[in-house]
Amino acid sequence: MAVHSVNVEKTIRSLLDDKKYQTLKDILVTLEPADIAAVFEELGEERTPLLFRLLPKEAAAETFAELAPEHQALLIRGFSDRELRELVNELYVDDAADLVEEMPANVVKRILAQADPEMRREINEILRYPENSAGSIMTTEYVSLRPAMTVAEAIRRIRTTGFDKETIYTCYVTEGRRLLGTVSVKDLLLAPDDDAAVSGIMDENVISVSTLTDQEEVAQMLSRYNFLALPVVDADERMVGIITFDDAMDVMEQETTEDIEKMAAILPSEKTYLRSNAWEIFRHRIPWLMLLMVSATFTGMIITGFESALAAQVVLTAFIPMLMDTGGNSGSQASVTVIRALSLGELEFRDLPKVLWKEGQTALLCGTVLALLCFGKILLVDRLLLGNGDITVLTAFVVCFTMAVTVLIAKLIGCTLPMCARRLGFDPAVMASPFITTIVDALSLLVYFGIASALLFR
Amino acid sequence: MAVHSVNVEKTIRSLLDDKKYQTLKDILVTLEPADIAAVFEELGEERTPLLFRLLPKEAAAETFAELAPEHQALLIRGFSDRELRELVNELYVDDAADLVEEMPANVVKRILAQADPEMRREINEILRYPENSAGSIMTTEYVSLRPAMTVAEAIRRIRTTGFDKETIYTCYVTEGRRLLGTVSVKDLLLAPDDDAAVSGIMDENVISVSTLTDQEEVAQMLSRYNFLALPVVDADERMVGIITFDDAMDVMEQETTEDIEKMAAILPSEKTYLRSNAWEIFRHRIPWLMLLMVSATFTGMIITGFESALAAQVVLTAFIPMLMDTGGNSGSQASVTVIRALSLGELEFRDLPKVLWKEGQTALLCGTVLALLCFGKILLVDRLLLGNGDITVLTAFVVCFTMAVTVLIAKLIGCTLPMCARRLGFDPAVMASPFITTIVDALSLLVYFGIASALLFR
Repeated sequence: MAVHSVNVEKTIRSLLDDKKYQTLKDILVTLEPADIAAVFEELGEERTPLLFRLLPKEAAAETFAELAPEHQALLIRGFSDRELRELVNELYVDDAADLVEEMPANVVKRILAQADPEMRREINEILRYPENSAGSIMTTEYVSLRPAMTVAEAIRRIRTTGFDKETIYTCYVTEGRRLLGTVSVKDLLLAPDDDAAVSGIMDENVISVSTLTDQEEVAQMLSRYNFLALPVVDADERMVGIITFDDAMDVMEQETTEDIEKMAAILPSEKTYLRSNAWEIFRHRIPWLMLLMVSATFTGMIITGFESALAAQVVLTAFIPMLMDTGGNSGSQASVTVIRALSLGELEFRDLPKVLWKEGQTALLCGTVLALLCFGKILLVDRLLLGNGDITVLTAFVVCFTMAVTVLIAKLIGCTLPMCARRLGFDPAVMASPFITTIVDALSLLVYFGIASALLFR
Repeated sequence: MAVHSVNVEKTIRSLLDDKKYQTLKDILVTLEPADIAAVFEELGEERTPLLFRLLPKEAAAETFAELAPEHQALLIRGFSDRELRELVNELYVDDAADLVEEMPANVVKRILAQADPEMRREINEILRYPENSAGSIMTTEYVSLRPAMTVAEAIRRIRTTGFDKETIYTCYVTEGRRLLGTVSVKDLLLAPDDDAAVSGIMDENVISVSTLTDQEEVAQMLSRYNFLALPVVDADERMVGIITFDDAMDVMEQETTEDIEKMAAILPSEKTYLRSNAWEIFRHRIPWLMLLMVSATFTGMIITGFESALAAQVVLTAFIPMLMDTGGNSGSQASVTVIRALSLGELEFRDLPKVLWKEGQTALLCGTVLALLCFGKILLVDRLLLGNGDITVLTAFVVCFTMAVTVLIAKLIGCTLPMCARRLGFDPAVMASPFITTIVDALSLLVYFGIASALLFR
């Protein structure tokens, strides 16, 4: 059963108060690292160093990797050099590299000083890769086998060297660091003949990524192929590391959060919401708010341009919010659908004609239904029920016709912009609701006043 | 290297035309099932049955599981009973259950008729669990060990029974179907003593889920703990199946898409965008559009209520879109951030005071900056540059003050509604931009006209 962190936290708190350290130890070893980290973050700064020292070495390293950077920095400040050395060398290389990336310079210096030479070399190698690339999230700890080994030898090798590998279940057959094939522990265990050569049972159709492949693409490939891990090769096709499914799941979560933030006109942040303070949240939200506000100048200009006409027909003003909102909603339905399909790899730019045709048909259906419903609503509710005598059948027609046209424009713009953004190498996610809404607002007002001028203001 | 499907598709097309079946066979075995399925879907109905028969049995089953339901139905219609029997019994149980769930009744009858009695029993067991529950996505094919087995016996058992298990890497130690602990193949292979009892090296702190646990929660647990698989137990704590990481990744992707669709006022659909026709897309989009359009009646009523005042001060109308959009954007920033944090399990209802405090501070910062910028913009751009003489300093003040108040209201509503929705057992995702926008529109107009009435219309 999943532990309920609130109860566990209470128990741990009271055991700490009573200084029952042995009982604490016994409880801590039963918990998962992610849960221990959650408890640590709840308990606060003062008590975690003590608790951390109660953990067995391996669990300590895994728990440490799950903590937030600020919390990690705090713990490190309290560590002796010996404690730091033990921790750093127990971490998986990719976690150690993450740590070095996120700590302030003086802490980094201490970390690297305590790392084994081999560990230091591997950390540095990973750090040299660009952010969000496969190289930056890979680990260099994988099992490599030689093609000439027998199945029995391969199993023996896994048994002797597998302890500090991140996964032993997919092994990589290499020669002079060139990746020849993969063989799973399942294949090895289920091989009918223990003396068969690894080269005979390995899968030579290896799917690999380059160190520079974008991490999102890596995550999508792992998910598409249901692999436990993907090998990473350098420009010379030499194997340099692996990316495991659990890292891919984290990437997927993080990239989706970024997409969602961008779609809501927020600059993406690495920090979680509860860990960010108001100033940080403000800085990520204000740029788009300012930009979108200033671009609303155009809608203002359009209304000002028709000011005298509006003064004569103030009833038209009452429908502006409804027209703008419906346009905005229609447009963002189309853009969000297309953005998600793009980011799942279902759509490419060459599908644009297909998408336009689909959205065009949908827009006609939606526009017609909405216009009819709106026509009925205006005449029955606004005119009869609410007794607004200024509304004529012609006014209702102008509003509803505008609505149908607006829905069509909104859907077409909504699907086109994200695809063009992708084509031009931008992130399609910024072409979501807020951006589309601003454009559609201006266009819907132009259509509204255009139609009104033609039919009403004569 | 990842295969480029366009080239592969071309090659396969021309080989088919030339009837070079042996070459085709040789190429197909080098591809991943997901890629073969993609090629099949591109090639169209007529040619896939032939291609499908060229695949080796296991690859055929895996490719079949990757195909879209319509395509599966098509293939099945062309199968002889013998072919169908071979396919069905080669599928993993969870894929077979998915198939039965999605096929029309007459096809289901054929499938169940061809399934082995054991397979049929297992399919039926899975189908009895509610949709989106752990039971409905689990597979019953896992490796179970007895606590008294030695390490050597356990490895032998895996070697003899592992062939048709979905994962052999985590084994489940059971007694009378009660789950006692888990042991990984890594633990078994790296165990120093081959004669040690499994009960001595197994991990007794098993995290499991119930058959009725929501699939989204299962996916989050797998991601949180970096597990390869999670065991599923029934109400009597007996082990009934496992859920593997690859199914969890699919669930994560699917649930995120659903969240994003809901946030954009679209009813979630199981079909991908390109596979849906305009009518289906329309049906998923029109309900919210209609609802939101009708609720805009309130904003219309508010404007109508101030109609005579507006007629005297038409300049105020020009700022309505800007105020509404800024309010909507501010509100959706807050709501989307909170919705995402809720769905990642970072926030709970009890955090509401913390969130309100954070959003309140952020809103004051955003509101102040936007109001100042807007004040400058109105006086410099709208009044001086565009020469709109109707704009007075007092008008600018009314607009900017309204903006600050609107941002505050929008942020507070934006963060509160999703949390309340979660509390009441609804999906927070529907409380996103479109819904918040409609509420904020009405409130911002009320504030606008309220302030304007107090300061301007005297």
